[in-house]
Amino acid sequence: MRSFQGVASLQGKNFMNIDELTDVELRDLLSLSAQLKKAYSSPSPPVLPRPCEGKSVSMIFQKRSTRTRVSTETGMALLGGHALFLGPQDVQLGVNESMRDTANVLSRFNSLLLARVFAHTDVQLLAKHSSVPVINALSDLYHPLQALADLLTLEEHFGKGSLQGKVLTWVGDGNNVLHDLAMGAARLGMHVRVACPVGYEPNGEIMHRVEWHAQRSGGSYVMERDPMTAAAGAHVIVTDTWVSMGQEEEYERRMRDFEGFQVTRRMMEQGAKGSNAGRPACVFLHCLPRHPEEVTDEVFYDPARSLVFPEAENRMWTVMAVMLSLVGGEGKRV
Amino acid sequence: MRSFQGVASLQGKNFMNIDELTDVELRDLLSLSAQLKKAYSSPSPPVLPRPCEGKSVSMIFQKRSTRTRVSTETGMALLGGHALFLGPQDVQLGVNESMRDTANVLSRFNSLLLARVFAHTDVQLLAKHSSVPVINALSDLYHPLQALADLLTLEEHFGKGSLQGKVLTWVGDGNNVLHDLAMGAARLGMHVRVACPVGYEPNGEIMHRVEWHAQRSGGSYVMERDPMTAAAGAHVIVTDTWVSMGQEEEYERRMRDFEGFQVTRRMMEQGAKGSNAGRPACVFLHCLPRHPEEVTDEVFYDPARSLVFPEAENRMWTVMAVMLSLVGGEGKRV
Amino acid sequence: MRSFQGVASLQGKNFMNIDELTDVELRDLLSLSAQLKKAYSSPSPPVLPRPCEGKSVSMIFQKRSTRTRVSTETGMALLGGHALFLGPQDVQLGVNESMRDTANVLSRFNSLLLARVFAHTDVQLLAKHSSVPVINALSDLYHPLQALADLLTLEEHFGKGSLQGKVLTWVGDGNNVLHDLAMGAARLGMHVRVACPVGYEPNGEIMHRVEWHAQRSGGSYVMERDPMTAAAGAHVIVTDTWVSMGQEEEYERRMRDFEGFQVTRRMMEQGAKGSNAGRPACVFLHCLPRHPEEVTDEVFYDPARSLVFPEAENRMWTVMAVMLSLVGGEGKRV
Repeated sequence: MRSFQGVASLQGKNFMNIDELTDVELRDLLSLSAQLKKAYSSPSPPVLPRPCEGKSVSMIFQKRSTRTRVSTETGMALLGGHALFLGPQDVQLGVNESMRDTANVLSRFNSLLLARVFAHTDVQLLAKHSSVPVINALSDLYHPLQALADLLTLEEHFGKGSLQGKVLTWVGDGNNVLHDLAMGAARLGMHVRVACPVGYEPNGEIMHRVEWHAQRSGGSYVMERDPMTAAAGAHVIVTDTWVSMGQEEEYERRMRDFEGFQVTRRMMEQGAKGSNAGRPACVFLHCLPRHPEEVTDEVFYDPARSLVFPEAENRMWTVMAVMLSLVGGEGKRV
Repeated sequence: MRSFQGVASLQGKNFMNIDELTDVELRDLLSLSAQLKKAYSSPSPPVLPRPCEGKSVSMIFQKRSTRTRVSTETGMALLGGHALFLGPQDVQLGVNESMRDTANVLSRFNSLLLARVFAHTDVQLLAKHSSVPVINALSDLYHPLQALADLLTLEEHFGKGSLQGKVLTWVGDGNNVLHDLAMGAARLGMHVRVACPVGYEPNGEIMHRVEWHAQRSGGSYVMERDPMTAAAGAHVIVTDTWVSMGQEEEYERRMRDFEGFQVTRRMMEQGAKGSNAGRPACVFLHCLPRHPEEVTDEVFYDPARSLVFPEAENRMWTVMAVMLSLVGGEGKRV
Repeated sequence: MRSFQGVASLQGKNFMNIDELTDVELRDLLSLSAQLKKAYSSPSPPVLPRPCEGKSVSMIFQKRSTRTRVSTETGMALLGGHALFLGPQDVQLGVNESMRDTANVLSRFNSLLLARVFAHTDVQLLAKHSSVPVINALSDLYHPLQALADLLTLEEHFGKGSLQGKVLTWVGDGNNVLHDLAMGAARLGMHVRVACPVGYEPNGEIMHRVEWHAQRSGGSYVMERDPMTAAAGAHVIVTDTWVSMGQEEEYERRMRDFEGFQVTRRMMEQGAKGSNAGRPACVFLHCLPRHPEEVTDEVFYDPARSLVFPEAENRMWTVMAVMLSLVGGEGKRV
């Protein structure tokens, strides 16, 4: 089996959000992800390619995350490289050492840094001082790795290159996950509709960029107030938890604010009717972890319409494509 | 050096306890463990086989464990695969995400899940929802990996196939470690004797299964109250700590309840006399970590009769045999 | 690319401090480090040597350390082996299990143990009971891995074999880092000057050994009280943080005691004048993490005179040389 090459134009660059990619880079990352998935999932691959042999990534987590950690660590091992898990107990960014010094030092040891941070400025600061590429694995503004996984999952369901003109509806909190998913969907020509309670709208500046991309691509972007209206005719309905780790004290208030925003069977039935080559015309996504408030069991575990577990798996194939592209395949070690 | 194949009938199955194995599977796992030990311990192996190349295991620990973690992680690395350590800080089973979702997601990333849990129902729930094999690395009912290591250690000492008719005496707390060791010993034709204080008896239902296996194999199972009586003529005397992590508040009560159950030189001298091909006829086992209450230094560090450190080492060779068998050697990746 | 051999006389030995090495071993470790750096940093190495394939190291940290952990874990991966991170949450030396038992068990699983401890007696106890080599990765008395990295950095700057006769001045706390750096510098013929506040002097016994080595090698060792006097004509000025993790409550007192000991541009200007083959004749070292009290930004981030980031990177190449030497290249597995 031939070894894999990354997306060449991304070599040595940071991966901060979907907006900074070119259209071609976005499409190429999705293609490479699909190729990696096919090759490494083959029941009996004759020889396992190890295109990241000798490469390493320090994964810095200000906030724990099972999916991000396991997908990155396992994916890097499949590529032949090594991932180091640095949890909040191991590195406290900026506490015992300045971000500048930490970035400087780690980028002397590792080929890549990946960081899950609270403030987006933290991952920007890491990138500023790192001599190797930095991957944003979630900040308060962006979650580009999740967006890639979601788009790959949709291309698998609707067919590669078939997202143009499809309707993607986000119901719930207008958060970081939405920002990059909307950005990616708009760039692939989708019609993006967002329904959030008052006070939970997405970042206006970022959504202006989404609108700009949508206009270029033949897609569109609209804000709705009513989730049922937003769901009408949708091909994809997406939500996320209303209460993230660390927001538990706001639980009661959020439950009231999000009343009527739970994704239910009735809401799914507002979506596009019929089927698409034998598959449901309207599917459900959720980046996990899921809580029962935002989506019923009936929808979440629907074997035909819920794509949440393939979506989770695709976190691995997409982060592999990103890492391979940034380090540039058989390139410089360390 | 040829690569290794696992025990074929175990491919794709869970590994929950010794009872669920067939007699042949139990013997084959012990043989494979011995073969792996021989091959990988060779001073200069010409080529190192990596039969788990591309495979990975998520190790989930509700409770920390040095031996289980280091033996599994090192063993998987020797086999060419990758083990991920998920401690209580990393994954809290069922807390931020349902067990069902966690099992579903992790089994999309990894080839195996291994879990050290409190309640046996937790590892069963993981297994129910996992699409890949699950290994029970200690629950409140079973500890099958420890039983395999103990039996391998005894076969090394007494000779392969020589355990039939030997007496194994457990002195102390009738716990999860006893359950699987008694089960394995009974299946290999040993006479199992158990001496526990009142209130610390093993699980009746499990010991009925032990009795059933003993009857089939020509072994036996008896409960004794007096440890000295139980030790009379024994070939193996085994104990475990009386106070596990998390039970420290019960320390005083347990010290009183276990009075007279410490394994001492006098107790060892009740065991089988003479020697077996130059080796002591009565040996001592302990799964560690050890505290001084349950066994004297004189017995624990006796270089001839205490097998506790080879027994610990065998945790690695046996878990390697289990992992290799469940993933099935050069099979499907991920 | 040919594979690497370790320093043969170190095979199977412990690595406790710089004093226990022979002069030849010290020089050979530095040479091997430089060779590893050159080979693994090459932009396109044709084949990556994996001389520690099948080898493993348990890294035991009583106190967390980013640099030590990431340099060792990444370095072992580059060498083809596996490093296990055991933090204070994973192993508490001597708490739930005796040091003797922990050392016995881990050395059955791993090829090397590396420990970062508080009391030097702890790493000695590990070494006493381990059947595999033990690396001291920082104790209250010694930090030999840091000394190797510092000496490699100086040889890179001044030229291999050019340290004889150069002046190395330590300004600040007379701690464990100083002990081994002074020992190594003295053995390579450097003139070591130490300026500490009253009450912060280095260990007298160890510094007697430094003096002894200096006399043999044509170097020297002197204590100064005034940092400016100590800095006069120095080729290297080194300091370390005044307040380590865990000493935060002493902050106010230490700030008063160390007044005048901050490394400033004025202090650097007391150093050797002119240049050395186009490079500054006086350079700055710091083992990190750095706090602003002990050195100004102007000195610390001086692109020409501050070698702190290459120094950090060299932690990886030197620990690789040590690990490879102790396990002895393609030797016995486990």
